[in-house]
Amino acid sequence: MAVKMKYKKLFIPGPVEVKAPVLKAMSHYMIGHRSQDFMNLYADTIPKLKQLLYTNQNVYLSTSSSTGIWELGARNLVEKKALCCVMGEFSSKWAETVKLCGKENEVISAEPGKAVKAEQIRAKLEQGGFDALTLVHNETSTGAMADLESIAAVMKDFPDVTFMVDAVSSLSGVKIEMDRLGIDLLFAGVQKAFGIPPGLTVFAVSNKALEKSKRIPNRGYYFDLQVFQKYAEKNQTPSTPSISHIFALNAQMDAFLKEGLDKRFKRHTDMAEFTRKWALKKGFGLFAEEGYRSITLTAVDNSANLVNVAKLNEELGKRKMHISDGYGQFKQKTFRIAHMGDLNLKDMKELTGTIDELMAKGVCK
Amino acid sequence: MAVKMKYKKLFIPGPVEVKAPVLKAMSHYMIGHRSQDFMNLYADTIPKLKQLLYTNQNVYLSTSSSTGIWELGARNLVEKKALCCVMGEFSSKWAETVKLCGKENEVISAEPGKAVKAEQIRAKLEQGGFDALTLVHNETSTGAMADLESIAAVMKDFPDVTFMVDAVSSLSGVKIEMDRLGIDLLFAGVQKAFGIPPGLTVFAVSNKALEKSKRIPNRGYYFDLQVFQKYAEKNQTPSTPSISHIFALNAQMDAFLKEGLDKRFKRHTDMAEFTRKWALKKGFGLFAEEGYRSITLTAVDNSANLVNVAKLNEELGKRKMHISDGYGQFKQKTFRIAHMGDLNLKDMKELTGTIDELMAKGVCK
Repeated sequence: MAVKMKYKKLFIPGPVEVKAPVLKAMSHYMIGHRSQDFMNLYADTIPKLKQLLYTNQNVYLSTSSSTGIWELGARNLVEKKALCCVMGEFSSKWAETVKLCGKENEVISAEPGKAVKAEQIRAKLEQGGFDALTLVHNETSTGAMADLESIAAVMKDFPDVTFMVDAVSSLSGVKIEMDRLGIDLLFAGVQKAFGIPPGLTVFAVSNKALEKSKRIPNRGYYFDLQVFQKYAEKNQTPSTPSISHIFALNAQMDAFLKEGLDKRFKRHTDMAEFTRKWALKKGFGLFAEEGYRSITLTAVDNSANLVNVAKLNEELGKRKMHISDGYGQFKQKTFRIAHMGDLNLKDMKELTGTIDELMAKGVCK
Repeated sequence: MAVKMKYKKLFIPGPVEVKAPVLKAMSHYMIGHRSQDFMNLYADTIPKLKQLLYTNQNVYLSTSSSTGIWELGARNLVEKKALCCVMGEFSSKWAETVKLCGKENEVISAEPGKAVKAEQIRAKLEQGGFDALTLVHNETSTGAMADLESIAAVMKDFPDVTFMVDAVSSLSGVKIEMDRLGIDLLFAGVQKAFGIPPGLTVFAVSNKALEKSKRIPNRGYYFDLQVFQKYAEKNQTPSTPSISHIFALNAQMDAFLKEGLDKRFKRHTDMAEFTRKWALKKGFGLFAEEGYRSITLTAVDNSANLVNVAKLNEELGKRKMHISDGYGQFKQKTFRIAHMGDLNLKDMKELTGTIDELMAKGVCK
C-alpha cells in the first residue's frame, strides 16, 4: 500500500480494536451471494443474532452504515409524525434525517450530557398526533445513555407509536431485550460493541412494524423493509452484501456465545465502572449525569483543564493507543474513552496507567 | 466458523475470485474514520480512481451495494421524468427503483440478448419531457453490452437530460472515458471487474449533476450527493465507511496501475474473444446479439441442450470451479461465464478445458 500508517489500539467509539480472528475472517475467500454456501452462512448467523437481541421476530443485515437504518426507519415506519428524542449529535442527526426523507417530526431534547427521560416522552406523546419515536440509546457524543426500561414502560401505553431504538454503540455491550421491551426497530453497526470492522449494520424489526411498513409509500428500494423480508425468507439479502463482514459477524457470534452473553455484558459494566472510578480519582469529572452514564463509553469532564486533550492523544499515539477528543464544541472540555467490543479490564488498566504516567510527567498539560 | 464450505474459483458475474493480496488488505487493522490516517488513505485512493474513470470531476465511495446508487440517481437527479433503458433483469430493476423512489419514468426495452440502441433513445428523447436517462452498460443477465459511444453521441444533443450509467460489471474491465463521453453518473460495485469482495460502490458524478441535485427535494441523507460532496472536501465519507474495503481498493488501484490500464482492458477483451470462440467451436451459440456482446461476461446459448447446466455446474464444483446458470427464465437455455477482475487467459483455458473433458465424458448431459 502506498499509504503509510502506524497501528494504534483504538479506544474510540468505533471503529474499535478488532481481534486477529475477526480480521482473519474478513479475508475469507469469496462465495456467490445466491449460493447454498451463502444461504447456510446466513441461516447460521441470524438465529445467533436473535439470541443476542432476545427476539423471536425479524433480524436483517444491511450493507450500509447505521445511518442508513435511520433512513430506513423514517421511510418505512413514519406515517404521520415522529417524536425525535435528541440528547446529542447523533440523535440530532437522526431527527434531521427524518425531515430530509420528507417526513414530519417534532423534537424533545435534553441538555448535553443529560438523557431524555421517560416522563418527558409520555407528556409529549399524550398530546397526540405521533406514530413513531426515535431514540438513540447511547449518545457517544456526550456519554449519556437513556434508560430503556422506563421509556419502554411508557411506550407500552402508546401501542400505535412505533418504537425505534438506535443502539449503535451499545448493542452486544449492554443487554437489550427487544421483545420484552416492545422495541419495533433496533439496530447497531458492527464496528462498535460487536468488535468488527465497519461496513455492516444488524437490524431487527417487530412483526407489527413489518406489517405497518406495507402501507407506507415511497420506501424506495435499498432500505425497503418488505424487500429485506422477501429475501430473508430465502436466507439471502436483497442485493450483493458485504460477505466478508458476514463471515466476520458469524465468527464473532460464536465468540460471543462462547464467552457467554451475561459475562460479555458484565465485562462491559466492569470496564465502565473502572474507567469512571479512575477519572474521579484523578480529579476529572464525568460529563454525563449520574444514573445515565454510558456503559460502553465514558466522557471524561476536563473542565478544569487537567490535560490538553490534543496533546494527550498525541502522546498516547506515540504509545500506540488512541482515545477520542470531545465531540464538536466539547473538544477540549471533555475526552472520551470507549470501552466496548473485545477490550477488557487489562486494556483499560494499560490505557489509564499510561495517562497517569503522562500526567505525572506533565507532558500533556 | 460453524459453517463448512469448500473453495471454488468463481467464474460468476460477482462476487468474483479475489487475489490473495486483496484478501489480505481486507484484514488490515482498523483506523478511525475521522483520523489523519484515513484522510491520507482516501486522498491516495480517489485520484487513482479518477485515472481509471478518465475523469477530472467528482469520485465518491458508498458503503452499499450498487443498488444503492440506483436509488441515489433517482432521488438526486430525476426531477421531471427518467427514460429507463431496459435490456434485462438489472436494468429492469433500476427502472422499478426509480418508480419506488416516487419518481416518474418511461421505459424503452430491447428483447433479451439485444441492446437498447442509440437511435431508439434519440427518438424517445425527442418527444420531450425527460430530464434523466438510466442505462445499464453491461447486462449480466443476458450478456449484452450497450454501445456507449453511439449513445453518448446522442446524449450530447440533449444536454438537459442527465446521463446515468450503471457500469457495475464492466468498469475497470472496459475503458469508459467518463468526461469525454459526457456521463453524469457512473458507478460500479467493487465485487465485479475490480476483483474485490462486495460491500463498496465507487461512483462518479459530473459537476453539472452535482449542481442539479441541489434543487431536488427529499434526497434523504444516506444517498444525498450534497452530503457526499461536503465530506469528500475533507477526504472523508459522510458516515463510517467500510474501511477494510477501502484498504483493498487502494491496493487494487496500485495493482491496476502497475498492470497498466490498457493492458488490463486488453486482458479482458482477450478473455472474451477466447471464450466466445470456444463456445462456438463446441457447437453452442452466443445469446447476445453480434456487435453488442459483453467483454466481461459471455452468455453461452445452450438452446440445443448440449449440456444440463445444473449438472455441469455441479461437476465443475467438484473440480473447484463455479460458473453461473442462466438468469431467471433462461436457467437451462443459457449458462454464463464471467471473465473479469483478475482472471486471465490461463484461467479461461483451465475452465473451458474442464468443460471439454466433462462433455467428452458425457457426465453433464
